[in-house]
Amino acid sequence: MARIGVWLIGARGSISAVTVAGHAAMAAGMEPLGLVTERADFAGAGLPALEEFVFGGHEIQGGSLRDRARVILADCGLPLLADHVGEALDAVEARIRPGVVRGGGKQIAALGDDVVEARTDAEAVEKIRRDLDEFQAAVGADRLVVVNLASTEPQPPWQPCFEDADALLAALAGPDPVLPPSSLYACAALLGGDAFVNFTPSLGSRLPALEALALRTGAVHAGSDGKTGETLVKSVLSELFARRNLPVLSWFGQNILGNGDGRVLDDPANKATKIRSKDHLLPKLLGYAPESRVGIDYVGSLGEWKIAWDHIHFQGFLGGRMTMQFVWNGCDSLLAAPLVLDLVRLTAFAQGRGESGVLGALGAFFKDPMGTDEQRLVAQDEALLRWLASPA
Amino acid sequence: MARIGVWLIGARGSISAVTVAGHAAMAAGMEPLGLVTERADFAGAGLPALEEFVFGGHEIQGGSLRDRARVILADCGLPLLADHVGEALDAVEARIRPGVVRGGGKQIAALGDDVVEARTDAEAVEKIRRDLDEFQAAVGADRLVVVNLASTEPQPPWQPCFEDADALLAALAGPDPVLPPSSLYACAALLGGDAFVNFTPSLGSRLPALEALALRTGAVHAGSDGKTGETLVKSVLSELFARRNLPVLSWFGQNILGNGDGRVLDDPANKATKIRSKDHLLPKLLGYAPESRVGIDYVGSLGEWKIAWDHIHFQGFLGGRMTMQFVWNGCDSLLAAPLVLDLVRLTAFAQGRGESGVLGALGAFFKDPMGTDEQRLVAQDEALLRWLASPA
Amino acid sequence: MARIGVWLIGARGSISAVTVAGHAAMAAGMEPLGLVTERADFAGAGLPALEEFVFGGHEIQGGSLRDRARVILADCGLPLLADHVGEALDAVEARIRPGVVRGGGKQIAALGDDVVEARTDAEAVEKIRRDLDEFQAAVGADRLVVVNLASTEPQPPWQPCFEDADALLAALAGPDPVLPPSSLYACAALLGGDAFVNFTPSLGSRLPALEALALRTGAVHAGSDGKTGETLVKSVLSELFARRNLPVLSWFGQNILGNGDGRVLDDPANKATKIRSKDHLLPKLLGYAPESRVGIDYVGSLGEWKIAWDHIHFQGFLGGRMTMQFVWNGCDSLLAAPLVLDLVRLTAFAQGRGESGVLGALGAFFKDPMGTDEQRLVAQDEALLRWLASPA
Amino acid sequence: MARIGVWLIGARGSISAVTVAGHAAMAAGMEPLGLVTERADFAGAGLPALEEFVFGGHEIQGGSLRDRARVILADCGLPLLADHVGEALDAVEARIRPGVVRGGGKQIAALGDDVVEARTDAEAVEKIRRDLDEFQAAVGADRLVVVNLASTEPQPPWQPCFEDADALLAALAGPDPVLPPSSLYACAALLGGDAFVNFTPSLGSRLPALEALALRTGAVHAGSDGKTGETLVKSVLSELFARRNLPVLSWFGQNILGNGDGRVLDDPANKATKIRSKDHLLPKLLGYAPESRVGIDYVGSLGEWKIAWDHIHFQGFLGGRMTMQFVWNGCDSLLAAPLVLDLVRLTAFAQGRGESGVLGALGAFFKDPMGTDEQRLVAQDEALLRWLASPA
Repeated sequence: MARIGVWLIGARGSISAVTVAGHAAMAAGMEPLGLVTERADFAGAGLPALEEFVFGGHEIQGGSLRDRARVILADCGLPLLADHVGEALDAVEARIRPGVVRGGGKQIAALGDDVVEARTDAEAVEKIRRDLDEFQAAVGADRLVVVNLASTEPQPPWQPCFEDADALLAALAGPDPVLPPSSLYACAALLGGDAFVNFTPSLGSRLPALEALALRTGAVHAGSDGKTGETLVKSVLSELFARRNLPVLSWFGQNILGNGDGRVLDDPANKATKIRSKDHLLPKLLGYAPESRVGIDYVGSLGEWKIAWDHIHFQGFLGGRMTMQFVWNGCDSLLAAPLVLDLVRLTAFAQGRGESGVLGALGAFFKDPMGTDEQRLVAQDEALLRWLASPA
Repeated sequence: MARIGVWLIGARGSISAVTVAGHAAMAAGMEPLGLVTERADFAGAGLPALEEFVFGGHEIQGGSLRDRARVILADCGLPLLADHVGEALDAVEARIRPGVVRGGGKQIAALGDDVVEARTDAEAVEKIRRDLDEFQAAVGADRLVVVNLASTEPQPPWQPCFEDADALLAALAGPDPVLPPSSLYACAALLGGDAFVNFTPSLGSRLPALEALALRTGAVHAGSDGKTGETLVKSVLSELFARRNLPVLSWFGQNILGNGDGRVLDDPANKATKIRSKDHLLPKLLGYAPESRVGIDYVGSLGEWKIAWDHIHFQGFLGGRMTMQFVWNGCDSLLAAPLVLDLVRLTAFAQGRGESGVLGALGAFFKDPMGTDEQRLVAQDEALLRWLASPA
Repeated sequence: MARIGVWLIGARGSISAVTVAGHAAMAAGMEPLGLVTERADFAGAGLPALEEFVFGGHEIQGGSLRDRARVILADCGLPLLADHVGEALDAVEARIRPGVVRGGGKQIAALGDDVVEARTDAEAVEKIRRDLDEFQAAVGADRLVVVNLASTEPQPPWQPCFEDADALLAALAGPDPVLPPSSLYACAALLGGDAFVNFTPSLGSRLPALEALALRTGAVHAGSDGKTGETLVKSVLSELFARRNLPVLSWFGQNILGNGDGRVLDDPANKATKIRSKDHLLPKLLGYAPESRVGIDYVGSLGEWKIAWDHIHFQGFLGGRMTMQFVWNGCDSLLAAPLVLDLVRLTAFAQGRGESGVLGALGAFFKDPMGTDEQRLVAQDEALLRWLASPA
Repeated sequence: MARIGVWLIGARGSISAVTVAGHAAMAAGMEPLGLVTERADFAGAGLPALEEFVFGGHEIQGGSLRDRARVILADCGLPLLADHVGEALDAVEARIRPGVVRGGGKQIAALGDDVVEARTDAEAVEKIRRDLDEFQAAVGADRLVVVNLASTEPQPPWQPCFEDADALLAALAGPDPVLPPSSLYACAALLGGDAFVNFTPSLGSRLPALEALALRTGAVHAGSDGKTGETLVKSVLSELFARRNLPVLSWFGQNILGNGDGRVLDDPANKATKIRSKDHLLPKLLGYAPESRVGIDYVGSLGEWKIAWDHIHFQGFLGGRMTMQFVWNGCDSLLAAPLVLDLVRLTAFAQGRGESGVLGALGAFFKDPMGTDEQRLVAQDEALLRWLASPA
């Protein structure tokens, strides 16, 4: 059996904890609910098996993966699971290395109590790369997929060197921070020909320079920002208004959430990155830009739960005005973790098929997909199935 | 310019009133919002123009079309419109003929204060047919489309003669009622080669015998039960759960509405017809049958508004349980009327293209489509576009 | 320390299981949340302490109290609690005796696999009475409070003997069932001078004959139908419309629930009893009767959770129409159990103060209070505080 | 018949337009729905009749009262009303005078196209006072009530002169702005012994210096911030949690609204004033401070409608966690206008009874009541009834 090394950035975070715990629980016989790649129409496509995965990762915060899993899974209504798979969590814990905060802004820096020091971005990339190589050797992995699950960073200002691979590599050698952590990780992964998946709205590999690098090293990458809740609903529900020719006047969405993600978003700079990722897609879904707003607020008592209330004001025949509202009540990590496993599978599959560069066919998984303009879930999913059958 | 005669069954009902008023308002320059066939991707398909339509119809209740339009449109927030298009409404009023209640059950019979007497079903069909012919001659229509917009009837018990066209025609000559009114109208339309559209959950043309008749006379027909509210949402939103492999545990829907439709549904027999039409489609949308219920209750104060609350209980990763709820707040006739105009257009287009029999490609418009098993709105809409480009 | 015997009818049901488990958990130090009598303004009133309670009860269904508590509490998000207090549950289990189904209708009879046979109602009462006496002796209780928590029964037809104590006692000696089980229990309790609390919408002690009996024996009783969810909200929220002079046009409520209570309510006869109890109070709250409906449906996947959606349509200034909706998402037994403890405390307190007959001052706890016409929660609560300070 | 002059600050705003139009409509026979003082329990208290009111006011924006009423009332579903009472609107239009923007911040200044220039606050007060006197003389009013309905101002920093009447009057004579417009109007009213009602969250008469002035001149005043929507619900619904001893963990409220009020609130300074007024009352309602947030966002398509979604997370027995959500869908001006009429009535009544200073008994009408700490609607309403029967 092949081995796929899965390297999680933010390895003691909620999504990582649930991903690792869930992977172990399914190995122990739990049904693979919520995995797209476990649908009947993915059978026979030749995707790697979940059993092939072995996990490690970077993390800047202390604590233990098992403790984190206990808290999160109890919040999600599964209080006994973490200890049932405690050994698997502890095994991954032993493979977590200190992460990078350089260039991540003050909220991220404040979280970091277990970080790697680096005098230049190039040095940070080199240290990350060394961790990846050691992990691969240690676990005997045939290939690596690096997945960014860390807290949302502020968006850095655009720089000319973002446009060109060589200019970027040169800039990284200088003393000033050029890239945010998510992009340093992406750079390290792609430089080594490994896959990179950005499950967050942070910059990650979304730079022409890094896309050029990926094509040069034959690496694949995908992103960004996992589509798990309110945006997922939008990307389906908007079809109703579009197909029925019912113009949307306004679409207001309000999210409240209680986990660490929410706390970081209390900082306006980090929140702006997130909201842009969530708010830009209505024009693509509808073909015009209705009045819209997306709010995200931290309500600590909710713990791992994220609740979205959306109010849609639309016009019908003769200009008559009507409304639709929905309330989405989801356990965030339970929605995200299976998609992480799906993405590792699909990315590793693309590696195995010899693809390189950005994987636009994975757009269904992301709020802000790279490599495609399609935002409608059904069309994205159909495109995924077509890609699976034959490379793009 | 060609003329298309549009014959409305339930011609003084809410949907008819709004259809006629809206048609006139658009002729006077109002934007055609809510019409599927006015979307950009329908341009150039060669559909008949709305200007070609001329209306008449059958009705069993008294009152006037203009009065009805006044009440309904005021309820919908458009209090001035009925009188702005009063002449058009009055012109159609003059072309309304008494309808048939024979075989429609006691709720329908109780409504009927302007009905045609008939000793046999065959006589009823003949009288309907005569009205259609007189209308066609009077308005100089090139073709006719008959649209059933009347109140929901109880579902009649199935009879062997429903299976065979000749057996049915023979049975109609007997003294006992065989068909409910919706099917008598369908029979009259199809016998004369005219199109029949069933916008209600009543039986209509959903009999093998009438399908055989349609093929024999070269008539087209389509149905049934316009997909305008809660079911429309279901047929889009279910994709989220299916595509993401999130098993739905239960889907509970409750509708409250205040119009005449709601009052008739207070009778359990009529309500059963409606609920079956709404409730059977989840298994087709999801591929399995979750626990489900659909309730419909009459709340008079709501007038023309229909409010649906749906509660969806689903499982995610590791069996975690989550919920989604939506509230749909729609003005029923404003949602239905543009679809009636779409259906007339598309049906007349099929007639012109020489098609006959049931038009499965129009499934997107119906809760319980004939001629197709597809219930997902996006797939239905894509099928419609393909059919438009080339006949099935 | 005094001892209060608490005898639960439906002793292995959800509310009983949570009441007993919660009582033990509080004895072990858990905070007494959700108990009205633990509010600061009840301190110093001289209510009996929770430690004085000792439980037993009647039950017609098999199973074990600990198993039941495990399932219910896990549903409520407290999966470990039942075993933490397992010994207390087992101790009560040993004091459960077979119950009575005579006169309870077919749904109740179908549930009964552990029942006492009786040839007459009088014999049933006698056997119940014997169980109460044995319990009191066994646990050394100073006084007894019998609380009906059993499934809702169909409402029996009214009979002349319901009006007079002696006529009732005479009728009970005949061979035909006269009273439903809830009233047989009430009769047994009151005959012995013990307190009876009816937490269900069943008939219980709501008969002039039983009130006369209570006055004769110096017993107290209270009821009926614990106010825990939608009705609780109504009894507060209606004040807004009343105090602001905003006429309610319609108030529609829909409940979905997944526990045993819900399953029994699937029978129309049992459901009718429940709905009457929930629906009759709007006129008393508002001073006029708006259009209203209350629906209750069983949705098994919800387990112990009860979700209510209410849609309130009201008029404001100049007749303008507006709406309010609420969704109540409650764990039924967690809402009911603390009120059971409150009622035992308050009823025992009244006994101790020498009161007899119906306790109208406890109206705040009930959907359909006996002994008062007041339905508004705030006024009921104020009345309770006044009664506490000085007997009525 | 006595005449009460009602002077509206923000006289061409939404609430003013609806107040004047509604007053005229009721004079023409429309039912007085939504007026607290029209409840049965206010009959016989000797309140002034609505017919005694005659309106005028200050305004900084152009346009006409009739046009404004047309737009607002059409939004509220009453499109014909403005013209039915057009003469009354035009009569008041003729009595509108240019207003003051001095000290109101940049949002308010930007709105002002019809303003009075003043070199000092004292001069502004004097000019306002002159307008009031001219109005009273012109309409022959026995007494005046000034009601502030203008847009929310930023809260000014606190100054020592706010504490003392003479110090304040001295400071007003200086060149720098000391008071915001709402307080300049309050000062002018109270100086002349007229009543002042602050229906907005702006500072108004909420200064010890102005309270002292009111006592000195024998004027009455009341405020602040009309309680019309989400806060109104909170002040009733919180009783449920308090009376049932169910601790609220978090209470999140989100408001979206489309009228001018909403546009001004898009400025963070103005929004802060509003949110403080809405958010501070939970601790007073519950007796402790749960986690809470209140959001207000402008969604233009909603016009005059304000929609609030509140999510309440609470604990029950054994710490079990449950939720309640509500959606309030109200037409803002229709909710506010009748309260303005109530307040004029009650304030004029207090004047007539010889009261002076702040009227704490009117707390039921305000989000942030002056002269009382009571925030619960029921208790406030009971206090109002007691005050009506006998002066405080």
